[in-house]
Amino acid sequence: MSGFAPRFDGYAAKVRESFSRQALMTTFGAEMRNIAPGRCVIAAPVTGAVTQQHGVAHAGLTFALGDSAAGYAALTLMDEAAEVLTVEMKINLLAPATGPALVATGEVVRAGRRLVVVRAEVTGETGPVALLQGTMIPV
Amino acid sequence: MSGFAPRFDGYAAKVRESFSRQALMTTFGAEMRNIAPGRCVIAAPVTGAVTQQHGVAHAGLTFALGDSAAGYAALTLMDEAAEVLTVEMKINLLAPATGPALVATGEVVRAGRRLVVVRAEVTGETGPVALLQGTMIPV
Amino acid sequence: MSGFAPRFDGYAAKVRESFSRQALMTTFGAEMRNIAPGRCVIAAPVTGAVTQQHGVAHAGLTFALGDSAAGYAALTLMDEAAEVLTVEMKINLLAPATGPALVATGEVVRAGRRLVVVRAEVTGETGPVALLQGTMIPV
Amino acid sequence: MSGFAPRFDGYAAKVRESFSRQALMTTFGAEMRNIAPGRCVIAAPVTGAVTQQHGVAHAGLTFALGDSAAGYAALTLMDEAAEVLTVEMKINLLAPATGPALVATGEVVRAGRRLVVVRAEVTGETGPVALLQGTMIPV
Repeated sequence: MSGFAPRFDGYAAKVRESFSRQALMTTFGAEMRNIAPGRCVIAAPVTGAVTQQHGVAHAGLTFALGDSAAGYAALTLMDEAAEVLTVEMKINLLAPATGPALVATGEVVRAGRRLVVVRAEVTGETGPVALLQGTMIPV
Repeated sequence: MSGFAPRFDGYAAKVRESFSRQALMTTFGAEMRNIAPGRCVIAAPVTGAVTQQHGVAHAGLTFALGDSAAGYAALTLMDEAAEVLTVEMKINLLAPATGPALVATGEVVRAGRRLVVVRAEVTGETGPVALLQGTMIPV
Repeated sequence: MSGFAPRFDGYAAKVRESFSRQALMTTFGAEMRNIAPGRCVIAAPVTGAVTQQHGVAHAGLTFALGDSAAGYAALTLMDEAAEVLTVEMKINLLAPATGPALVATGEVVRAGRRLVVVRAEVTGETGPVALLQGTMIPV
Repeated sequence: MSGFAPRFDGYAAKVRESFSRQALMTTFGAEMRNIAPGRCVIAAPVTGAVTQQHGVAHAGLTFALGDSAAGYAALTLMDEAAEVLTVEMKINLLAPATGPALVATGEVVRAGRRLVVVRAEVTGETGPVALLQGTMIPV
């Protein structure tokens, strides 16, 4: 998960600009905390607007944060003109997702020419709450 | 995917009551359109608040609807006192998720005593946009 | 899962020829029972050489049959010069895989230009034993 | 992935004994190279009996090794009387699986009372060829 090189200097600005256009992330109050080649960290508060029936964060929030962090980790390694789409994603839920915030760290595992394999971990106040593994595609 | 029998008469009311407590579904403007033994349909509008950077619905919305539909399909077959949690879920994205609404249909594939295997399909205006396959657990 | 059209007349012969070169399938005594556009059926006996510690078929056999059936279902819809590789595959195990044989039915869900989404069901003597959902890529 | 404690002293002998009863592993010529609390390493040669149509190892072999390594990693942390079954497993294939041998390293991510979340990495002569993430259940 190290040694990845971006293909152009402005990768971080491009990723942040794309993130700013993800309305769902804005709806969730999410912020991009860190961006580096092959790695991205996104955090969002666990508010009363995103819970499930037991009062903890809905798996949909956990998934959305992990998926976005993984996708933007992949985008850091793509060509300047490329955008990124999720092909598929698997999530294992490890523990109840309690706040005050969830932090998703996405990482590139393998950056192929046609596909990028990614992972993400989402943590809450008590530690890891979910692991994701999936595939991104440049478009 | 047929022939499932609920364990008590009030399963539909219990599912609808649980759904009403999923704040994320309320945030998304989602409604439960249909509930039957081993099956559940949930729909939500694709508004400007839930898009990704290309203007179509974020995979997080698609996942959340599919996951909730699958989970409530499972809950229809559980004991009266049980609640349901997602163990894991895999999503394959088939096409851009365009509106005006997404409709998620969850179905039970196998209702075991300890675990319930589920699937869901999410459709948009042009047809299927995602397939989900996963595992639910009673708690 | 219907209405798929192959891209050239000899798709079935091409698939059977490729299958004959899968040494693992030969090792398992597997046979291709049926091939149609977007669909493939492969069966193998549950012998004493493929069991796990409880005496039923190892998940590795179940996976291998489902993966091959899904991959060849995808290959039926690809160009004449294309071969197929598995990008990723998810399997949910539903019941102990008892013999005398396992039968895997693979189907194409969406045939894209760059990727093909597939499913497979594997059945044993008592009914379904596994469901698979994954992604194939032409090479 | 550290700090896991086995529940009884003889966990390693129990795991090795169970592994010796997995006929498919014997068929593959697999050996258990290492066993520790929450971790297991299994290797197998890439022979002419386990290839796919392009002459590299079939995904079925890669999956079987990863699944067994992950399952036995989980079994190291279970009660003395427990056996282990795979609930579900997701595999992402990273590169052609070339020999002379494949080595699968399974690790426990979270050891719950009812379910154990696991990962595995399979490597060949050129590096990682597959990543697996899944769920095991004690029986």
